[in-house]
Amino acid sequence: MNGIFITLEGPDGSGKTTALQAIAKQLPEYTDKKIVTTREPGGSPIAERIRTIILNPEHTEMDARTEALLYAASRRQHLVEKVIPVLTNGDLVLCDRFVDSSIAYQGYARGIGEEGIFQINDFATEGIQPDLTLYIDIDPEEGINRIQRSEGSRENNRLDQEKLTFHEKVREGYLQLLKKHPNRIVKIDGSQSPEKVAENCIEQILTHFSTNKKL
Amino acid sequence: MNGIFITLEGPDGSGKTTALQAIAKQLPEYTDKKIVTTREPGGSPIAERIRTIILNPEHTEMDARTEALLYAASRRQHLVEKVIPVLTNGDLVLCDRFVDSSIAYQGYARGIGEEGIFQINDFATEGIQPDLTLYIDIDPEEGINRIQRSEGSRENNRLDQEKLTFHEKVREGYLQLLKKHPNRIVKIDGSQSPEKVAENCIEQILTHFSTNKKL
Repeated sequence: MNGIFITLEGPDGSGKTTALQAIAKQLPEYTDKKIVTTREPGGSPIAERIRTIILNPEHTEMDARTEALLYAASRRQHLVEKVIPVLTNGDLVLCDRFVDSSIAYQGYARGIGEEGIFQINDFATEGIQPDLTLYIDIDPEEGINRIQRSEGSRENNRLDQEKLTFHEKVREGYLQLLKKHPNRIVKIDGSQSPEKVAENCIEQILTHFSTNKKL
Repeated sequence: MNGIFITLEGPDGSGKTTALQAIAKQLPEYTDKKIVTTREPGGSPIAERIRTIILNPEHTEMDARTEALLYAASRRQHLVEKVIPVLTNGDLVLCDRFVDSSIAYQGYARGIGEEGIFQINDFATEGIQPDLTLYIDIDPEEGINRIQRSEGSRENNRLDQEKLTFHEKVREGYLQLLKKHPNRIVKIDGSQSPEKVAENCIEQILTHFSTNKKL
């Protein structure tokens, strides 16, 4: 697989989805590769059905490990149906969330621990990792405020019911991952304007792929 | 948890569901424990929904690892909501299929390997294992013939579309597990009459729990 796999990560309300769209628009100036944007479980009917189970607000009795396994299952199907074909074709995938999300949310915030989450996701991905991960950092309180301000424009889901301390643990998880994988993950300041966030992301992509794979 | 956890395993058509019902009927003669019969994902709405995704005959594009992760997710939820409360209460659970099924079907027959399947299920169960597993052995061709003869009385599902070689590999997987866990798994000859199969099962239960936990 000689394509390029870039993921965007960050707490809810960090602005990563907006950033992803801006990157996808600007990146064709710098590469001839086809840019494919996706988010788990997009583009796979089976993965979408799994997501429906995960996010159903009625499923309050869902165990944290069940949730983690469902995310891994959805990830696997999305990877096989959507991501791998693009990478095999030598193109570029921009993906909204990947394994790091599960480690931050289920591993750290739900307290399952990083090791178990890593193992089930290693099973799901067979070791496929992003070439570069853009982690958009935001103060959890600001992230939640942004989500609440935009309510109505975004579907309310089961995870939005979590408290602030949960989102603080999510951020702590991301910061630990950043320390652990300094060559793969770069931190972007999400408190900046959306234009500036996107600009930083593009800069990081250009820097990263001038030394590693070619864009 | 001072309850007793007994699982029934075997290829499709081995007669394990019939045996389970017969055991549940006869076992109260030998124990004061409450007998709870269940099958994954029974008794848990979330687990049932996961099962619907797994068994949908339209889901032909389902990847083998996705399937394995969904089984593990469904298993987790069923364990937490249904099995653990009974075991905690000191009662007896008779469960139709558990982790061994995933190792035989996904690990051996689908070729994922035992190790990966064991790991994701170890995550799902947090190490909870059956006290005793009754493996009902049947020639795969005879098993398939039985299923076909009973068609109409049983819902046709995605797994029934598999070929004979698949079911032969499932049996091979079970026989390997039997070698590996001789103290936990006992083999019952499924070619016998249903009455004789149930009788053998009861005998094995009485033998096993005369030396280990008390019935």
